[in-house]
Amino acid sequence: MEKDKGLLLVLSGPSGVGKGTVCKALREKMPELIYSVSATTRSARVGEEEGVNYFFKGRDEFQRMIEQDELLEWAEYVGNYYGTPRRFVADTLASGKDVILEIEVQGALQVKEKFPEGVFLFLAPPDLSELESRIVGRGSESEETIKSRMEMARTEIELMDKYDYVVVNDYIDTACDKIKAIIAAEHLKKDRQIHKYRKWILKEV
Amino acid sequence: MEKDKGLLLVLSGPSGVGKGTVCKALREKMPELIYSVSATTRSARVGEEEGVNYFFKGRDEFQRMIEQDELLEWAEYVGNYYGTPRRFVADTLASGKDVILEIEVQGALQVKEKFPEGVFLFLAPPDLSELESRIVGRGSESEETIKSRMEMARTEIELMDKYDYVVVNDYIDTACDKIKAIIAAEHLKKDRQIHKYRKWILKEV
Repeated sequence: MEKDKGLLLVLSGPSGVGKGTVCKALREKMPELIYSVSATTRSARVGEEEGVNYFFKGRDEFQRMIEQDELLEWAEYVGNYYGTPRRFVADTLASGKDVILEIEVQGALQVKEKFPEGVFLFLAPPDLSELESRIVGRGSESEETIKSRMEMARTEIELMDKYDYVVVNDYIDTACDKIKAIIAAEHLKKDRQIHKYRKWILKEV
Repeated sequence: MEKDKGLLLVLSGPSGVGKGTVCKALREKMPELIYSVSATTRSARVGEEEGVNYFFKGRDEFQRMIEQDELLEWAEYVGNYYGTPRRFVADTLASGKDVILEIEVQGALQVKEKFPEGVFLFLAPPDLSELESRIVGRGSESEETIKSRMEMARTEIELMDKYDYVVVNDYIDTACDKIKAIIAAEHLKKDRQIHKYRKWILKEV
């Protein structure tokens, strides 16, 4: 039976939720998962390798990549550009391997516009009481502070609506198991399977 | 955090694919999965219990259930009615438990019309070469036979299109693991999670 195309898995969520930790643990458990390598204009640090840690680019080259729509998302951070090269993701998926992209929420939404067939995972804080404490604090906060935090939480939850799955980051192992189940299930989706049967039927007629 | 509503899992596929065997193995591995109890007009056999093996109904009562849309699907088989009572499924799901319904393809499509939020799994034969042998046989079949079998295979594959997932029944354990992953992933879908966060936000305002 022909090989499936890989999945692009986008792991995102509010800052401080533990995306990096979960992503690292997941890659250890699933070495077959390919980590999306970013492009950047910052200089390589000692020990960093081209194509492994980053694709190192000049500013002009990075600008050209933006203009020619070669990035699934990009952002400027402390004077340097960072972005996700579309080519690396597309080539890896075409080879039948799954790609994981760990990224903050704004970047994930950019990716979703350019690559809606990705699987978008929102990593959520352990429970609502944490959300609560982030909003009402220790009880000594002003009404205004609480109101503004509430607004932020509401925005985050509305962003959650753009995702396919919500994974609560209670325990790293549990979160990884859930993500593994999502990857397995996504590969079994009818739209990813039926073409093989259709192709076979057509071939034989 | 409030309890999730259960999932209705509909396990179906062409006859002879091994639905019953997979369903039995899955229930052994996941005793928390509730098996949908059918209603029937046939008489109870020795050892069969009301509400466990079947809900035993008179023909008039069964007719009334059909007319009042109390069945997710029904069919007549060798002079008796068989059907899936909506109430049993709805009550079990409301209690937070997942329900599994093992059923042939025509029944599954009836369920899908009445309960589109179910998760529809198509159990497929181990590989396309089996499909092939079912169609071309041992090479001694007439062109007409092959043509009619091809038509049947095409119909089956078009029915596959109505399902959410395709699970190949190669090894029972593997098929069960895949179904477990699908159940886990379905519970993590954003639409099943976000309402808790939304409700919390509303409550606090």
